[in-house]
Amino acid sequence: MIKNDLYLRALKGETVERPPVWMMRQAGRYLPEFIALRDQYDFFTRCQTPELAAEITVQPIRRFPLDAAILFSDILVVPQAMGIDFKMKESVGPWLDTPIRTMEQVQAIEIPDVNDSLGYVFDAIEITLQKLDNEVPLIGFAGSPWTILCYCVEGKGSKAFDIAKSFCFQHSEAAHLLLQKITDTTIAYLKRKVEKGVSAVQVFDSWGGMLSPEDYQEFSWKYIQQIVDALAPLSHVVVFGKGCWFALEEMAKSKVSALGVDWTITPEMARKLTQNNMTLQGNFDPARLHSNPATIKKMVNEMIHRFGKDRYIANLGHGILPNIPLENAEAFIRAVVDWKEN
Amino acid sequence: MIKNDLYLRALKGETVERPPVWMMRQAGRYLPEFIALRDQYDFFTRCQTPELAAEITVQPIRRFPLDAAILFSDILVVPQAMGIDFKMKESVGPWLDTPIRTMEQVQAIEIPDVNDSLGYVFDAIEITLQKLDNEVPLIGFAGSPWTILCYCVEGKGSKAFDIAKSFCFQHSEAAHLLLQKITDTTIAYLKRKVEKGVSAVQVFDSWGGMLSPEDYQEFSWKYIQQIVDALAPLSHVVVFGKGCWFALEEMAKSKVSALGVDWTITPEMARKLTQNNMTLQGNFDPARLHSNPATIKKMVNEMIHRFGKDRYIANLGHGILPNIPLENAEAFIRAVVDWKEN
Repeated sequence: MIKNDLYLRALKGETVERPPVWMMRQAGRYLPEFIALRDQYDFFTRCQTPELAAEITVQPIRRFPLDAAILFSDILVVPQAMGIDFKMKESVGPWLDTPIRTMEQVQAIEIPDVNDSLGYVFDAIEITLQKLDNEVPLIGFAGSPWTILCYCVEGKGSKAFDIAKSFCFQHSEAAHLLLQKITDTTIAYLKRKVEKGVSAVQVFDSWGGMLSPEDYQEFSWKYIQQIVDALAPLSHVVVFGKGCWFALEEMAKSKVSALGVDWTITPEMARKLTQNNMTLQGNFDPARLHSNPATIKKMVNEMIHRFGKDRYIANLGHGILPNIPLENAEAFIRAVVDWKEN
Repeated sequence: MIKNDLYLRALKGETVERPPVWMMRQAGRYLPEFIALRDQYDFFTRCQTPELAAEITVQPIRRFPLDAAILFSDILVVPQAMGIDFKMKESVGPWLDTPIRTMEQVQAIEIPDVNDSLGYVFDAIEITLQKLDNEVPLIGFAGSPWTILCYCVEGKGSKAFDIAKSFCFQHSEAAHLLLQKITDTTIAYLKRKVEKGVSAVQVFDSWGGMLSPEDYQEFSWKYIQQIVDALAPLSHVVVFGKGCWFALEEMAKSKVSALGVDWTITPEMARKLTQNNMTLQGNFDPARLHSNPATIKKMVNEMIHRFGKDRYIANLGHGILPNIPLENAEAFIRAVVDWKEN
């Protein structure tokens, strides 16, 4: 039904002619057609207006031969739906006037009906699927409960999320209650995305790498696993944990279809820690897209060679940077698309 | 000659009664007697006034039963000595009005005579050694060339140092020239510290974990290794690379006396990657000092159990956080000092 199903075949572990390719944050930032829209509408307007979110989602698909689209949205729409009033502050990023720091605040949070509070996302999926016309699969995503807790407690971005971590260590009961509420909302949210027609869901654990291996199990993986268990019977689930190499072995035992890895782990080590039988996604250093196109091509070939063409989805190791020249992004994608077994 | 030589014996790999303990950034931040001084003198005045730097160095030694002192200073005194005019900006941190972004700027940098430009550090060592009266060893330190380049190019702190990385990838000749100039200055600086009487030198590679394993070898480890090769015949050299777990195997082949590790790697994995024959230092999550003292004690015992008492230096996995209660810092230290083999 989907014409280019390379991404889905890689998720199933099938033998493919070449690895599929997409780029985290491919919709946005570095694209001139996105920047034109950004100058007209603020961040959450872009997320919350289905027509805009759908348009932004397909922009990179029109420009580049990508093998998957990912719905333009933000991980913070989930806490917003839970009544946690995130704003996007100019030159600061996500911002919460009253960060969550007490059990009373956590208890006051209600698990929303996602159909009411996140209906705009499901509408965006509908419009996007029309626009995509079955050319490539559409990926839906959510932040991990731990990563969302980080923003809720810290109230903004941070280098090390020490306030969020301290909250977990000092008020662990409140932390677990908050994590569970985020988890329950996220499961309902992702299930509805799947019903609306996304072909896979990806969970982004952007700040899991701030935790020790033991604390990661307790405060992050435990909740991601609930999401995986709930979604895997319905869809492909991919988990990307930035800096979470130490948890790969455990993650590989779950029902995920693939695991994302960042650029600080070698392909060989990532394969080894996942028993050599897992579809892996990654892991080109986004800053390496500042190399010239010829170097990028060489490095991509090397990356495919090291991961192997099967059970592999070529991607960056984190989101594309805002100032990457178009020709460099294209060099990355083309190198995968033009790749030939030799 | 040094009365408590536990730290030095651990560096030599000798059998000890219990592991030695010190804390990265133990001089400063969380100590009331430091805060009193901080309110009187600005950051670089504290670094550049030998009597003040010496006093701050010994403050934690008076308060706690630590097994080593580390000279109060900053990694940025080295680029300052090279004519790169770092300031400390209120609520921003390190700041450079004109970041280094071109080959011309790099070529203009001169390698200083450290005796002229960093004489205040050597004077601080002299005063500190008098104050310490051979009670515990004194550690001298420097930033890794890569970490210092990060600040020079970025011009300030950063979450991912993407500008610094892009500079290396786009202007790699200029990057290598800058790294070599920093390396040459650092070697002269650390050699002079050893002559003045420090018992060990530690190289802090705070931002090495931003690089891929391959780029780490090219832009960071290559230069740290020059420092290790130059210093190891004269003193103990310890390298701490935050997030650099992927380079441990290579690092362990060098002439370092010990390697520092952060809290994202298990003791078992750190031992395995260093062939089980290396003195390791770390790796308590600094945010975990927000747990209550009883939990801290339990976790420290567990940590010692997992690393083993020999070839091990108990420490945090990064610098102590500013808002840690004194009794929690003390609980950490006491747990090591009171540790008994059972």
